[in-house]
Amino acid sequence: MKKGATQKDIDHVAEKLRSVGAEAHISKGVLKTVIGAIGDKESIRTLPLEAFPGVEKVIPILKPFKLVSREFRDEDTLIKVRDTTIGGDYFTIIAGPCAVENFKQLIETAKAVKKAGAKILRGGAFKPRTSPYSFQGLGEEGLKMLAEARELTSLPIITEVLDVRYVDMVAEYTDILQVGARNMQNFLLLTELGRINKPVLLKRSFSSTIEEMLMAAEYVVKSGNHQVILCERGIRTFETYTRNTLDISAIPLAKSLSHLPIMVDPSHASGKRDLIEPLTLAALAAGSNGVLVEVHPNPQEALCDGPQSLTFADFEKIAEKLINLASALNRKI
Amino acid sequence: MKKGATQKDIDHVAEKLRSVGAEAHISKGVLKTVIGAIGDKESIRTLPLEAFPGVEKVIPILKPFKLVSREFRDEDTLIKVRDTTIGGDYFTIIAGPCAVENFKQLIETAKAVKKAGAKILRGGAFKPRTSPYSFQGLGEEGLKMLAEARELTSLPIITEVLDVRYVDMVAEYTDILQVGARNMQNFLLLTELGRINKPVLLKRSFSSTIEEMLMAAEYVVKSGNHQVILCERGIRTFETYTRNTLDISAIPLAKSLSHLPIMVDPSHASGKRDLIEPLTLAALAAGSNGVLVEVHPNPQEALCDGPQSLTFADFEKIAEKLINLASALNRKI
Amino acid sequence: MKKGATQKDIDHVAEKLRSVGAEAHISKGVLKTVIGAIGDKESIRTLPLEAFPGVEKVIPILKPFKLVSREFRDEDTLIKVRDTTIGGDYFTIIAGPCAVENFKQLIETAKAVKKAGAKILRGGAFKPRTSPYSFQGLGEEGLKMLAEARELTSLPIITEVLDVRYVDMVAEYTDILQVGARNMQNFLLLTELGRINKPVLLKRSFSSTIEEMLMAAEYVVKSGNHQVILCERGIRTFETYTRNTLDISAIPLAKSLSHLPIMVDPSHASGKRDLIEPLTLAALAAGSNGVLVEVHPNPQEALCDGPQSLTFADFEKIAEKLINLASALNRKI
Amino acid sequence: MKKGATQKDIDHVAEKLRSVGAEAHISKGVLKTVIGAIGDKESIRTLPLEAFPGVEKVIPILKPFKLVSREFRDEDTLIKVRDTTIGGDYFTIIAGPCAVENFKQLIETAKAVKKAGAKILRGGAFKPRTSPYSFQGLGEEGLKMLAEARELTSLPIITEVLDVRYVDMVAEYTDILQVGARNMQNFLLLTELGRINKPVLLKRSFSSTIEEMLMAAEYVVKSGNHQVILCERGIRTFETYTRNTLDISAIPLAKSLSHLPIMVDPSHASGKRDLIEPLTLAALAAGSNGVLVEVHPNPQEALCDGPQSLTFADFEKIAEKLINLASALNRKI
Repeated sequence: MKKGATQKDIDHVAEKLRSVGAEAHISKGVLKTVIGAIGDKESIRTLPLEAFPGVEKVIPILKPFKLVSREFRDEDTLIKVRDTTIGGDYFTIIAGPCAVENFKQLIETAKAVKKAGAKILRGGAFKPRTSPYSFQGLGEEGLKMLAEARELTSLPIITEVLDVRYVDMVAEYTDILQVGARNMQNFLLLTELGRINKPVLLKRSFSSTIEEMLMAAEYVVKSGNHQVILCERGIRTFETYTRNTLDISAIPLAKSLSHLPIMVDPSHASGKRDLIEPLTLAALAAGSNGVLVEVHPNPQEALCDGPQSLTFADFEKIAEKLINLASALNRKI
Repeated sequence: MKKGATQKDIDHVAEKLRSVGAEAHISKGVLKTVIGAIGDKESIRTLPLEAFPGVEKVIPILKPFKLVSREFRDEDTLIKVRDTTIGGDYFTIIAGPCAVENFKQLIETAKAVKKAGAKILRGGAFKPRTSPYSFQGLGEEGLKMLAEARELTSLPIITEVLDVRYVDMVAEYTDILQVGARNMQNFLLLTELGRINKPVLLKRSFSSTIEEMLMAAEYVVKSGNHQVILCERGIRTFETYTRNTLDISAIPLAKSLSHLPIMVDPSHASGKRDLIEPLTLAALAAGSNGVLVEVHPNPQEALCDGPQSLTFADFEKIAEKLINLASALNRKI
Repeated sequence: MKKGATQKDIDHVAEKLRSVGAEAHISKGVLKTVIGAIGDKESIRTLPLEAFPGVEKVIPILKPFKLVSREFRDEDTLIKVRDTTIGGDYFTIIAGPCAVENFKQLIETAKAVKKAGAKILRGGAFKPRTSPYSFQGLGEEGLKMLAEARELTSLPIITEVLDVRYVDMVAEYTDILQVGARNMQNFLLLTELGRINKPVLLKRSFSSTIEEMLMAAEYVVKSGNHQVILCERGIRTFETYTRNTLDISAIPLAKSLSHLPIMVDPSHASGKRDLIEPLTLAALAAGSNGVLVEVHPNPQEALCDGPQSLTFADFEKIAEKLINLASALNRKI
Repeated sequence: MKKGATQKDIDHVAEKLRSVGAEAHISKGVLKTVIGAIGDKESIRTLPLEAFPGVEKVIPILKPFKLVSREFRDEDTLIKVRDTTIGGDYFTIIAGPCAVENFKQLIETAKAVKKAGAKILRGGAFKPRTSPYSFQGLGEEGLKMLAEARELTSLPIITEVLDVRYVDMVAEYTDILQVGARNMQNFLLLTELGRINKPVLLKRSFSSTIEEMLMAAEYVVKSGNHQVILCERGIRTFETYTRNTLDISAIPLAKSLSHLPIMVDPSHASGKRDLIEPLTLAALAAGSNGVLVEVHPNPQEALCDGPQSLTFADFEKIAEKLINLASALNRKI
């Protein structure tokens, strides 16, 4: 309560709390009075307490997410995608081109990354682009190519779903549906994904806190789909040498707050090819459940994200280092 | 080019630039070589120059937006909404509840804000909420109440459209379609709004630069709808006393970079009722074309954003100050 | 307390609180226990509570500053500098060159800004520069020129003190000592300024919260000098069109949290000459006690901050608008 | 140049560039003219080009630091501190209490960290504290204790110097002088450290870019001291679960931009004991030359930073994991 809050103000808050079934514990100090609200957090949240006379600040003690929390479920969630397991002690390498450009580009990349150790193939068919003048993806044509690449390599595939209208279409082709950073708080899309029976990889928005990422995951889980993989891909800061700042602490934090697996996308976080190797190694050492990296047969000709794409040779070298490091850390590949 | 770039690297870049119809101006310094690319920016953007050998950095000289730029159109865009004009020297007050809760709440608010000087009525029917456990809005029922409030008060209305599936439904009822901050880079939604013949108010994402806001506006305009109103509503920073940091400089900057009107939403920027008055006055003094404020008959009972909502008496006082200040600054109300 | 905290953990915290003279109010919920600590905040702060077993988080309820708080002193602090008053309803214009370059430049500027309405002359003699290769100021020579300009114009002067070794020297010449943004948390310098009997203008660091600025002011006041003027000059954010983002909300917030005057420096906040006019007007409308602006006879020849310096003609125009606006807002110039 | 820049404006800029010995390469496009300035960067920097008529923006191509750059010196700088080497392939563990509290606390910690694998002992004698009411350190008494601990354990010591007045005193006792994050841009202190013949560990300010850290290092090196160790300790962002956000990318970036060693301080970056292990492992995997961690015999009784301090047992476990990982990565301990 504010310094000048009256007894009437205090009683009013206490009474309102009781009206939603909560208890009010009143502690009076010399300067200020603090009211502790004990009860169901959803009921208490319906009261706009900060709008009440005499109230200075409301400080939530319980976390605003529930189903995704470690407190709700103690053991790690493991997610099966065909023969691959994600979560727990597993470290999963996902690789492929930023955008599916044509079948030749895709299948060459799929074979190369599989050979080097990738377990899942990534590739965008629908691309969110900051400029309306940039390449926007091949759409369903791209999805078909991805499915065909899966047939030929047995690599499960992951691709982004941009819009509620395409949820069923994308789910029909892909093994994992990816929600891009800009859609992390597209609550209607999250709700739609809740009714799909396939895993969802949810990228952290570059402007979201870890708590907000977990609340976005809560939307999907609450709507019925428990197979959510979190993904850290850098946050926006004042630093300009990198496109975003990879928040490496998000990995251990997410693992302590939630039972869901968490991965890292160093390609988007840094925007720079030279940083992919040190950042993937760091992600693994910090406990990540995997990495997503962009690989292209010829980054110079890429229609999207060329500067951060790895060549086949780059990727092979990094994958080898990751596999060695995982073994030194007793992690399963 | 990097310090060690070879003549072959330089020739390669120059040749690629020529292949898309651009000229390459090569300036050699003692330490580094700089290649100036002169030509159509859209053609040049198709080259992933940073992926070329020897290239250190690509620095765009031309701005990435076009149709919304002041360079494209020198005079201010004026937008007519029934009898109200937005843009140029006009300062327009938009007020109403955060969410439409029931007809009584809405119509009382509409009458009160009209009497105090508001020209447009705001109210949410579809609400994006960070938590899946919060009130999500009345949906089409709310749109009908807004239309009825317009009949009774002749105030034009503005309401948010959350999703591509509801564009036509919302457009049928409302006078202005609002795009929320979290949807500012929902490119498919922006494209859909491009085919609607009603003004769009585009809120700046709390994590977007001014340039990205203008590129989002470019999506709408390029798709055919020239009636876009920009809206600054605070950006995310390290400061925690306010919910977001109102970027007051965005107003003069947007006005110098673009011909579109720009407004300010101080309620969401600050999250605090006490800051609404100083921030609205500052917005007007900095050249804003208007403000959006949240008003509620009884903020203590609000289902949404109670702590930042004004009472009728608060709003009346602020509106009076705004009208006086506008007159001192030779602005039209 | 954490979810699994034991009764022993709870008792341990309670006992430690009592050992420093505080009361412990224990509220047990279904999921968690909250312990309210009631007592002297300085005593409680000596306990590293977060290091105790079972403790999840410590949330301070009382503000960490005291002498500078509005709760400590209700009425506005007014500061007299020769014939000029700062604080309360006063709006004070401070103007002058970024750096004192030579006497001719200084005295011409002093006369021009006085004529246009400035009440105090600013000018740097010691300059903190990001690069060791930039102009570092004239030192004591510059202080002498400032004092001489004061003799000739009767404008009080303000200049920056960079280092504890120069506190006495700078205090001997100047009327107000300025602490630059980079020194806001130079606690030894702040302590030294506490023993000087002249006002101190404390610039907010571009990476400090409002609370940290007030705690820096607390250092000066606690050391004996009550004449502190706060100054908002922009914070570092992801936006790159402006050098920093002026936090306009800091003005009303500082005024509600503290009794000290607060000013705005739009030149450093924006780094752009074209923004000075809208930002100074906005600062005044938001309740600022004054502005500091950089003025130079010929910005093209300035040794420091040319791009953001106003010409005499620019300044005259802005000062006139500020004086008119102040009168419309019933503020004293 | 701006869109409407005249031929006279262009000629004026070109002429000014020539007046400082630079060449001006003029490239005219359809919309804009670009002038490339080729010459000595320090001479060109003396011109306030952005203040010239018709100039839109100045984009520096050369980096603003020189002596610390990888371009200036290709091979890694190795720094010898008694028998320990810092830089290159070495990974050095520095550990000790946040503040020296008394000799018993210090010597117990020194012995414990030495046994577990630390090569250098840290401990603060002068403490910068945000609040004037917090413990400020033992001063010279603390320095003497550190020197005595070195005698007894042969661990070299590192301690912070807060102020120009104490540079000689601190240098007399310590092996490495530490510059705290808040002093990173205390240019007079940096200049004083340039004349000392002992290594300087320079902590990145939580609000500085990597480029600014390198320019601060340039101050020290330019003043005569080549033994500078960089240290990443987290930057300020909007995320609130951690005290700061560790910028892990700063490690590979600093190593590619500069020949100086770079270390990581995970204790200050995170403010949380549980994050120290994953962050130190990640730092090593990303290529860091070492880590600084806070260790205390009894964190519950610490006078400073208890919540982030490790117990002896925690530290032993982490040091063992670091030593194993370093060996898997072919790094020297």
